[in-house]
Amino acid sequence: MVVVMESAAAEEAKRAVINRLEDYGFETHVSTGVHKTIIGAIGVKADFDTREIAVMNGVADVYRVTDPFKLASRNFHVDSTTVKIKDVEIGGDAVAMMIGPCSVESEEQVFELADVVAKSGAKILRGGAFKPRSSPYSFQGMGEEGLKLLRAAADKHNLLVITEVMQIGQIDLVAKYADILQIGARNMQNFALLKEIGASKVPAMLKRGLAATIEEWLMSAEYILSQGNKDVILCERGIRTFEKYTRNTFDLSAIPVVHKKSHLPVVADPSHATGFRDQVPPMARAAVAAGADGLMIEIHGDPSKALSDGPQSLYPQDYLTLVEELRVIAKAIGRKICC
Amino acid sequence: MVVVMESAAAEEAKRAVINRLEDYGFETHVSTGVHKTIIGAIGVKADFDTREIAVMNGVADVYRVTDPFKLASRNFHVDSTTVKIKDVEIGGDAVAMMIGPCSVESEEQVFELADVVAKSGAKILRGGAFKPRSSPYSFQGMGEEGLKLLRAAADKHNLLVITEVMQIGQIDLVAKYADILQIGARNMQNFALLKEIGASKVPAMLKRGLAATIEEWLMSAEYILSQGNKDVILCERGIRTFEKYTRNTFDLSAIPVVHKKSHLPVVADPSHATGFRDQVPPMARAAVAAGADGLMIEIHGDPSKALSDGPQSLYPQDYLTLVEELRVIAKAIGRKICC
Amino acid sequence: MVVVMESAAAEEAKRAVINRLEDYGFETHVSTGVHKTIIGAIGVKADFDTREIAVMNGVADVYRVTDPFKLASRNFHVDSTTVKIKDVEIGGDAVAMMIGPCSVESEEQVFELADVVAKSGAKILRGGAFKPRSSPYSFQGMGEEGLKLLRAAADKHNLLVITEVMQIGQIDLVAKYADILQIGARNMQNFALLKEIGASKVPAMLKRGLAATIEEWLMSAEYILSQGNKDVILCERGIRTFEKYTRNTFDLSAIPVVHKKSHLPVVADPSHATGFRDQVPPMARAAVAAGADGLMIEIHGDPSKALSDGPQSLYPQDYLTLVEELRVIAKAIGRKICC
Amino acid sequence: MVVVMESAAAEEAKRAVINRLEDYGFETHVSTGVHKTIIGAIGVKADFDTREIAVMNGVADVYRVTDPFKLASRNFHVDSTTVKIKDVEIGGDAVAMMIGPCSVESEEQVFELADVVAKSGAKILRGGAFKPRSSPYSFQGMGEEGLKLLRAAADKHNLLVITEVMQIGQIDLVAKYADILQIGARNMQNFALLKEIGASKVPAMLKRGLAATIEEWLMSAEYILSQGNKDVILCERGIRTFEKYTRNTFDLSAIPVVHKKSHLPVVADPSHATGFRDQVPPMARAAVAAGADGLMIEIHGDPSKALSDGPQSLYPQDYLTLVEELRVIAKAIGRKICC
Repeated sequence: MVVVMESAAAEEAKRAVINRLEDYGFETHVSTGVHKTIIGAIGVKADFDTREIAVMNGVADVYRVTDPFKLASRNFHVDSTTVKIKDVEIGGDAVAMMIGPCSVESEEQVFELADVVAKSGAKILRGGAFKPRSSPYSFQGMGEEGLKLLRAAADKHNLLVITEVMQIGQIDLVAKYADILQIGARNMQNFALLKEIGASKVPAMLKRGLAATIEEWLMSAEYILSQGNKDVILCERGIRTFEKYTRNTFDLSAIPVVHKKSHLPVVADPSHATGFRDQVPPMARAAVAAGADGLMIEIHGDPSKALSDGPQSLYPQDYLTLVEELRVIAKAIGRKICC
Repeated sequence: MVVVMESAAAEEAKRAVINRLEDYGFETHVSTGVHKTIIGAIGVKADFDTREIAVMNGVADVYRVTDPFKLASRNFHVDSTTVKIKDVEIGGDAVAMMIGPCSVESEEQVFELADVVAKSGAKILRGGAFKPRSSPYSFQGMGEEGLKLLRAAADKHNLLVITEVMQIGQIDLVAKYADILQIGARNMQNFALLKEIGASKVPAMLKRGLAATIEEWLMSAEYILSQGNKDVILCERGIRTFEKYTRNTFDLSAIPVVHKKSHLPVVADPSHATGFRDQVPPMARAAVAAGADGLMIEIHGDPSKALSDGPQSLYPQDYLTLVEELRVIAKAIGRKICC
Repeated sequence: MVVVMESAAAEEAKRAVINRLEDYGFETHVSTGVHKTIIGAIGVKADFDTREIAVMNGVADVYRVTDPFKLASRNFHVDSTTVKIKDVEIGGDAVAMMIGPCSVESEEQVFELADVVAKSGAKILRGGAFKPRSSPYSFQGMGEEGLKLLRAAADKHNLLVITEVMQIGQIDLVAKYADILQIGARNMQNFALLKEIGASKVPAMLKRGLAATIEEWLMSAEYILSQGNKDVILCERGIRTFEKYTRNTFDLSAIPVVHKKSHLPVVADPSHATGFRDQVPPMARAAVAAGADGLMIEIHGDPSKALSDGPQSLYPQDYLTLVEELRVIAKAIGRKICC
Repeated sequence: MVVVMESAAAEEAKRAVINRLEDYGFETHVSTGVHKTIIGAIGVKADFDTREIAVMNGVADVYRVTDPFKLASRNFHVDSTTVKIKDVEIGGDAVAMMIGPCSVESEEQVFELADVVAKSGAKILRGGAFKPRSSPYSFQGMGEEGLKLLRAAADKHNLLVITEVMQIGQIDLVAKYADILQIGARNMQNFALLKEIGASKVPAMLKRGLAATIEEWLMSAEYILSQGNKDVILCERGIRTFEKYTRNTFDLSAIPVVHKKSHLPVVADPSHATGFRDQVPPMARAAVAAGADGLMIEIHGDPSKALSDGPQSLYPQDYLTLVEELRVIAKAIGRKICC
């Protein structure tokens, strides 16, 4: 932490700040210039609230100089993490494809789409059984019945399953059927849920909150990691801005930034980021070109009949065409799609 | 819902849209102009995803014309709701004051502050026993022990207690000690929690999410109301913007807007909105002048020792001075403070 | 400036940073801790691009510790500035009222409204003669004819005139008729215009840009001050956020923040901030309660016929009622309205 | 325009709205449902302020159904526009590369970089001679001397020149040396400048404002087009959000959205969008993959000595490597780089 004293700060104010810092266990170093005095406070206290010092007399500014996360930081863990589940790796050379319907709706639907997923060479089937909906009157998912269908359809093709967990009470149930627990954007700071998923040790994918900074997102990953669960995957799915022609603003710069700040793999979800089918292929291509470690894409055989998010679901054929374009782009940067 | 067709849309495309709308149960009315055809779709389907129509051929734009919430809407419930708990009313002439420490830290602390609360004439004691913290390494609250202290300190002065519930498993425990369950900003779209609090029928205060539109906030209130809990209070606590000199941007315009759109009372929390002690009094005054039905303010006898949010806590004396200013402002708009 | 080196930074990298800083003329102080080395760089270079150092090898973070503005800073000029024009003061005890129509439309209109302004005790007449409109097909203002009418109507009641200047070529013309030059939100970073208005020495009111941080706003004020014009007034008029129920989000916290960071007076404009008539009175009251040094409010005798911004204009009678409420609120914080 | 009346609106209120709409010249169509009455108002008035109707008694909501721009709209001009200047096309199959230093600094610098530009196969040299800087104390550009150097260096290799114009008084001077006039993000709503550049008929590139919606951006393009200048190019350069780890948020979804809404070509500027050199290559690749019609990228032979934006400038060698990656990506979507 670095504390900058106001030009006019009295000696006594400076001493008070130094004493307070030392009470908190920091080692202090003082640099005195003509206009400003700077106090360096050395000592890692990731959770220190810098406002404690900022409100003291004579303090002009306070800067935290250590990232507020540790286990999620690349400083702490220099090599990139590869999450390995059965024979699938997320974070390696191959861009992992997580494909399937928004919601599981029927046996026929999920088996038909799992066929498409397998045909494309993707290794992970996605699908929602518990759905977070902004209206209490909307379809809330098939529940355990949906989980069973997902698992059966995935097993037919030897695919992994990723699906969302919305509350602590569902973790054991979902983990019975799924390989990866998805934590939705609206739950990114549901700290109780993060801790329990950390304790479960089941691989987890943490979506970025609608208005979460990358720093907060990594702090939420820290919650999971701090409970001993090392298999954490991040997922960028668009942030909220003032723009009205898109559902969200897809923050693709987050991909190189996460790769610099953290060792965790980061997946991109162009379906939720854009909200409209015709924007999914260009943004999926852009995400691979930007270095995403995976893509999560929604598909549906008859989107106009989908019980949720039909308008952003690709038709199977359009998805298969997109995969071919992605193969060329991945190759241009030394990667491949799936396998 | 109103559907605007593109100028060049074929007759067949128009018919397809009309058929789809009728399949969904809407009654349709078509207006044909020189440049545009407009299709009005009448029928209340609060949760209809307008993108379903937006992605059809020939469609230029779709507008939902009904608010996506119903029980929370002033159209549905014209008179303002007053939440009555024991002898306290929230939403009436008196501006309700919810005052106390950020976290309950000790018996001495909470009793000392409850004395200040009672002295000011306020009727509601706030204090956190379960704390949502962005870092897993920060103080997480005293738990049930804190709840007991809060209740005892409140009972000494016949005050109500408001405190936060972070997960479903805590509802019964917290309701045993508290009069009002607070739902934090980060849980505003934790739909599973909202439903259970709705079912509990315990009065609840729903804080606005950091990046929630007023519409989404009212839809989350709808989740609670839809389970039969009519005692819902809203709380504006600042939204996330690009500005860096303040912790959040206090959206005071939300107060008149909520009063227009909804019948529910709305409280303002200048402590969390600004994050700094010196900004709390001007913003508390502004909130009352803007018509807030209550204020939630953090106080602490020795903020530099507070285990959380000390920098935004008022000293008891400054709080008492503020209350006197607030009395004059409330009177200017025909209201009063507390009682 | 403070430079934090990565834990693993080589000695050579540290020396390179120190050398570079000294080349730029900074005096350096090094603090070495167990995990981090911190380099303090003393020397005021308000415009130094900290990214120059941030991209060097081994650098973890760089913090600027001096505000990037000087003449606008309260550090530089401790006493609050009062802008005095004829017998009117802006920034003193009285809250200055700048009242009038959005656009000057006719002689009758502006004289009628100037009567209302004078009747309320306000001292400054506002009105647009050159209008910045987002569509090229909208009414663009009456030009010089409008300026003449404004001046004449103001002179009848001994009022000051404030009106907008949109381009360098209009400065002399507008200054011939107006007492205060208004710089609109969309021109806040039209640096060429700022410099020329600075050189003109005519009192100027600088509106905050739609997406400008308070820091950038003060840097734009610095442009005007740096040319020798000391009579600068700031005006908060709402910022752009994700919220859709209001036109802009009125950032009232900016008022105490500006008062802390700068010595310049700050006015609030609830008409543009909210965009709707019914939100103007609560937000005007809130602005005075928050400590605004002035209010800019649009009024119109027949808003439904106004050539611009009718929906946010108050009826004269509602404005007069509002002023009475404002008098009570101003008194509660030791101020008065106008005089 | 579509007007939705409140459920409880009186017949008289409906008639008043219909009369007002007809006064404005709209043709009206009324649809009456059980709960709502919807009034369709047909007639193209691109600049109509819908708030005029929104504030009338009994009105629940008003929706504009026509885009507020016309000449910039794809509805009006179905085929994509290709801006042709000498033998260069922007908006065709080839992705146009606009490459060069942030600021022109010396003859040696600009000639050296023009060599790199030509070597890469790019056809357009960029460089600033008049610089908009947020601090009045920063380097403001070489002025006409810089323009002369740019032209000479471009002519050596038969390149086009693009450079920024900051004020009306500079248009003729800049047009003497440049092929494309760049309008900076901070001037996107400097309407006086837009009109004059429109009247000049010189090809223009309009950068998106920091907080401009895509709709407002297209309305600013409309200002230029409305004066008879058809050669308008758009440029996405990042928008302002709450994220702090990047300078701006690069809104790549704007590319497919602009292509859908407008016929104008759209270029992407990853240098300004990200602000840091290491993020430029991934974002440049992403922009091409997303369908950008051109890229604007800053390069510098010795970025640590650059007078502006050194930290975001690529080294020439890294730029040349990037171009090879871009060629593969462009091919994957049926395009090519430059020629």
